[in-house]
Amino acid sequence: MGEQITYSQSEAEQETTAGTRLQYFPQEAFDRARNATGSPVARTRLFAQLARFNTLYMIARAGSGHVGSSFSSLDVLSWLYLNDFDFGRDRYYSSKGHDSPALYAVHTALGILPFEKIHALRRLNGLPGHPDVGTPGCPVNTGSLGMGISKAKGFVFADRLKGDTDRKIFVMTGDGELQEGQIWESLVSAANQGMHEITVIVDHNKVQSDTHVAHVSDLGDLEAKFRAFGWEVRRCDGHDHAALAHVFQEFKEVTHRPKVLIADTVKGQGVSFMAHTAMKPEEEFYRFHSGAPSPDDYRKAVAELHEDIRHAAANVGVEMPAPVEVVVEPLSMPPGFQRLVPAYSAAMIAAAERRPELIALDADLILDTGLIPFRDKFPKRFVECGIAEQDMVSQSGAMALADLLPVVHSFACFLTTRPHEQIYNACTEGRKIIYVGTLAGLLPAGPGHSHQAVRDIASMSAMPGMTLLEPATPQQVEDAVDWCVDQARSSCYLRLVSIPCEVPAEIATLPPLEYGRGQLVREGGDVAIVAYGPVMLPQALKAARVLAERGIGVRVINLPWLNVFDEDWLANAVSGVRLLLTLDNHYLAGGQGEKLRSVLSGRAGTPPALSMGLTEIPACGRNDEVLKYHGLDAESIVAKVVARLE
Amino acid sequence: MGEQITYSQSEAEQETTAGTRLQYFPQEAFDRARNATGSPVARTRLFAQLARFNTLYMIARAGSGHVGSSFSSLDVLSWLYLNDFDFGRDRYYSSKGHDSPALYAVHTALGILPFEKIHALRRLNGLPGHPDVGTPGCPVNTGSLGMGISKAKGFVFADRLKGDTDRKIFVMTGDGELQEGQIWESLVSAANQGMHEITVIVDHNKVQSDTHVAHVSDLGDLEAKFRAFGWEVRRCDGHDHAALAHVFQEFKEVTHRPKVLIADTVKGQGVSFMAHTAMKPEEEFYRFHSGAPSPDDYRKAVAELHEDIRHAAANVGVEMPAPVEVVVEPLSMPPGFQRLVPAYSAAMIAAAERRPELIALDADLILDTGLIPFRDKFPKRFVECGIAEQDMVSQSGAMALADLLPVVHSFACFLTTRPHEQIYNACTEGRKIIYVGTLAGLLPAGPGHSHQAVRDIASMSAMPGMTLLEPATPQQVEDAVDWCVDQARSSCYLRLVSIPCEVPAEIATLPPLEYGRGQLVREGGDVAIVAYGPVMLPQALKAARVLAERGIGVRVINLPWLNVFDEDWLANAVSGVRLLLTLDNHYLAGGQGEKLRSVLSGRAGTPPALSMGLTEIPACGRNDEVLKYHGLDAESIVAKVVARLE
Repeated sequence: MGEQITYSQSEAEQETTAGTRLQYFPQEAFDRARNATGSPVARTRLFAQLARFNTLYMIARAGSGHVGSSFSSLDVLSWLYLNDFDFGRDRYYSSKGHDSPALYAVHTALGILPFEKIHALRRLNGLPGHPDVGTPGCPVNTGSLGMGISKAKGFVFADRLKGDTDRKIFVMTGDGELQEGQIWESLVSAANQGMHEITVIVDHNKVQSDTHVAHVSDLGDLEAKFRAFGWEVRRCDGHDHAALAHVFQEFKEVTHRPKVLIADTVKGQGVSFMAHTAMKPEEEFYRFHSGAPSPDDYRKAVAELHEDIRHAAANVGVEMPAPVEVVVEPLSMPPGFQRLVPAYSAAMIAAAERRPELIALDADLILDTGLIPFRDKFPKRFVECGIAEQDMVSQSGAMALADLLPVVHSFACFLTTRPHEQIYNACTEGRKIIYVGTLAGLLPAGPGHSHQAVRDIASMSAMPGMTLLEPATPQQVEDAVDWCVDQARSSCYLRLVSIPCEVPAEIATLPPLEYGRGQLVREGGDVAIVAYGPVMLPQALKAARVLAERGIGVRVINLPWLNVFDEDWLANAVSGVRLLLTLDNHYLAGGQGEKLRSVLSGRAGTPPALSMGLTEIPACGRNDEVLKYHGLDAESIVAKVVARLE
Repeated sequence: MGEQITYSQSEAEQETTAGTRLQYFPQEAFDRARNATGSPVARTRLFAQLARFNTLYMIARAGSGHVGSSFSSLDVLSWLYLNDFDFGRDRYYSSKGHDSPALYAVHTALGILPFEKIHALRRLNGLPGHPDVGTPGCPVNTGSLGMGISKAKGFVFADRLKGDTDRKIFVMTGDGELQEGQIWESLVSAANQGMHEITVIVDHNKVQSDTHVAHVSDLGDLEAKFRAFGWEVRRCDGHDHAALAHVFQEFKEVTHRPKVLIADTVKGQGVSFMAHTAMKPEEEFYRFHSGAPSPDDYRKAVAELHEDIRHAAANVGVEMPAPVEVVVEPLSMPPGFQRLVPAYSAAMIAAAERRPELIALDADLILDTGLIPFRDKFPKRFVECGIAEQDMVSQSGAMALADLLPVVHSFACFLTTRPHEQIYNACTEGRKIIYVGTLAGLLPAGPGHSHQAVRDIASMSAMPGMTLLEPATPQQVEDAVDWCVDQARSSCYLRLVSIPCEVPAEIATLPPLEYGRGQLVREGGDVAIVAYGPVMLPQALKAARVLAERGIGVRVINLPWLNVFDEDWLANAVSGVRLLLTLDNHYLAGGQGEKLRSVLSGRAGTPPALSMGLTEIPACGRNDEVLKYHGLDAESIVAKVVARLE
């Protein structure tokens, strides 16, 4: 089944629906829907479909985003906003955060956000890939799962302290999200303190990132679980506006405890072929979790939504304005670019074949971590842990103690942070575990800061015995996997960039890895740039070419070891230049540059140094614009070097 | 009530039961109990009381340890080991880990550990404060709460993969421990995969670190919760061996799902006045959670246990050998030593008085974090979150968004790791939160590596906008609190050492804090030592005095800013010497030394540098022996400097 997977489902992807004419409904359409004379149910139905139409526009234009999760949430969201929400007092936010396009569609429709923002999903200064407090209408930052209910309690505490009572807080969660322990951790005191101000809506769409929740990590009897935790529980069809009206009415009477609505929804609801219920029995993976729809799927979905909107509008006796058409420039992977993850998949298979003790663990990101071939080939040696990173790492610790070699996977942003104490605990047990974080670094910049792993070098390098490696090319991925599996004596962290990257000629063929040593990939006498990985090395090489034209010779060194250095080699490699420049795809604090400069400090002959890396919260946007925004593109490198040397 | 608190309850404490004659029963006593002719119930009862006797000996001798939690677990533990445990196949471990003295008492009695190890609790190369795989009979490392069930699943996976079926795994948890989200995260897949191999025993002793579980964060209907998560549930009196026998027998018949026994126990069971049920209504805090008993309490407890053992032995018709008496040297806080935490308590009160938006959050460590005066004075501005650090931090994020100033507390080892992603998420929301981690650094070394916070500088300094400060004296604590509250524009991390420390004359009066700058506390021309905090500064000053006698002039600089430096000031402060020595109470990786050397790298006039700090997993032991073991005492500093310069 692995072959059926297209990468357009991945967060790493950023391809607009190439050459397609895209359509959206203007704000006036939403105004007409709200002001129609029909029943609240019929008006809300029309409004929700309009919002789906514009959600699809935003995602198609951005080239990425979560269609399925947005569509499943839209009926609850629309009902609330049009009927049961006090805009001056109440707070609403999505804890899962994937459904931000739906939220933005509603917010632009209602004037909470300027309408023209619908053209700027996942763009610099536009609408971030996951909710951020910098955007009007977003009370909190989400996208890292499981935090929403805790945050609601913080608001209730503040409101009660200020005597500002009866401000309601509505929190939307996913169902896969309920696998996170923090959810259950957060339920307890809400019940003990009778936080009736909080209403949680579980968007129970049955499908999480990879596939069916029941296959990943079945939730069991959800109603019984919430009841046992002392919450008031209701359950209804999350697309039935009349049923929703009834539940929210009932909830108003509950003034002694927090409430949860388990909304049974359909992932992709609103477009027949996007509904998860339309999946064929032989289809394992739901196709519309993340990524832009194909041009063909987009056209079909728009036609179907438009038709439905016409009917819904007729039902409430209003006429819809025509959708506005826009032609967008295609943006897709340039020729010659390569991805590291497929090379990783192949290297894992090879390693597993020679090492029967090797097993792989995943936290509901099998599509993105490249584990499908492994899982298909070694089903008994694969553990799908669900969105439960702490549990995953502690499990792997015991597996290592039982003489297995666990390879633990997730996005770098989650893998190195959520189970931070668990990783350390496993380190103290002295067995080898290999951690593999994909989606590492600043890019892709579309999902936003919850998904940008830019402090993992700092936190992982202080784990005792942990060796950090970031390979730059598909070939180096294989070398790195082999080193971790066969040569490392203690735990390793493999930092894998997921976006497609160019492979300049200078790094197309790299010599074998040598522990703690880098690889000279370009000669030069004035400046030594030390960089790593497929994002920064091409920028360094481009900068070197430009600087050469200005008479500045730049030596470029690929140093894939992020926290272990052969000090003599390093001192020699950067000697004799007028400037040492380190380039981090990470915060300056705790990055490779800080570490290697520290090692060189006080050594005779150490050149003056300059470090480039991230210094602020990473921006959301298209990859090229974000790299430039943070001053990490070739042009910025050139400017910095010139300013320093000339 | 705050005044009733003695510091002997704190993990920071290390005072032996001064001048007391201590007693233990030799291994032969346990052999006689096991081989007695009475019923299994009567034999086990005797064995458990003997184990309590020796547990108390170990803790009194070590000067710290958890009496209450050890005593509450001992009947279940003794029953299992004597009656329902296959030593060749089954695994037992405590997830809470506080009850390790009880475990060691049983393991030394049964020969799993050499008997003489009972004299070496919390000593270097002895028995660690929390379980460690380096000790025979400990299958996993615990002490960081909530990981035990996840680990059990890892073992089951490994056993099943190897076809090594029916190896039982018994996991003891606390009840306060159930507040950790990882517990609930870990239950799900155990149920889905029918892991009947796992039996969890909840030592439901009703009292957690600070006080009654029901007051901290009530657990609600525990049976219903575990049932809702798909586990087989039983409940019985955890001190009734016959009832325990019955439950474990019933569990043998359950072969399709994991099992949990909620064992209703009494904290401190076995000694009348140590039982939590003997607490007076006006007593808020249980006195025997951690720390050594007072000499008087010790004598009374021993007398009572001895009397009970005589009766229990008579019941099974055996005669007990006399306990062996040992006189131990007293070890207590030397005169002139000071603690930082009381100064912190006072500074918090003062800050709260002038800043009405200031609130404090705590994770069941109110005794250790110094928050009792605050809580008593500002009860509405205090939030007890229980052992739920992720939940606490996400709550504080919302409070900050609602214009409060949250000050978030726990032990540094937990605060900076368990909610690592939550802290970052809050940073991205751009509001100020003050994090205060007590028990920071290598010492106290008695609790072991789960409690030694030695990588928090690395991980916290990569949080955007986070300023890290470690004050060295009570006066500097006040300055640091005021700076964080009044001057810091973004979030801060206050790193607080908890052990009593000497305050040498050179640092008794320090000038006011200046952002990014340190304080010259001793002049010298050959070596510049940059250090921080109350553990390393006295060592640096001691070393400086010794080196002065050898003709080496040592300049000592206190630099309380751990990640922000005034670079010009720094370069000037360390200029003109033959050697720059940085001293970290932290791993070298990511510590202050690495950061400041990085800043100086390539600057003209930077002296050759040497960094001292932790390079391996911190050892458990008495503070002085552990400081020496890691080469961080004055003597080691002298040796390093001399070796480098002479």
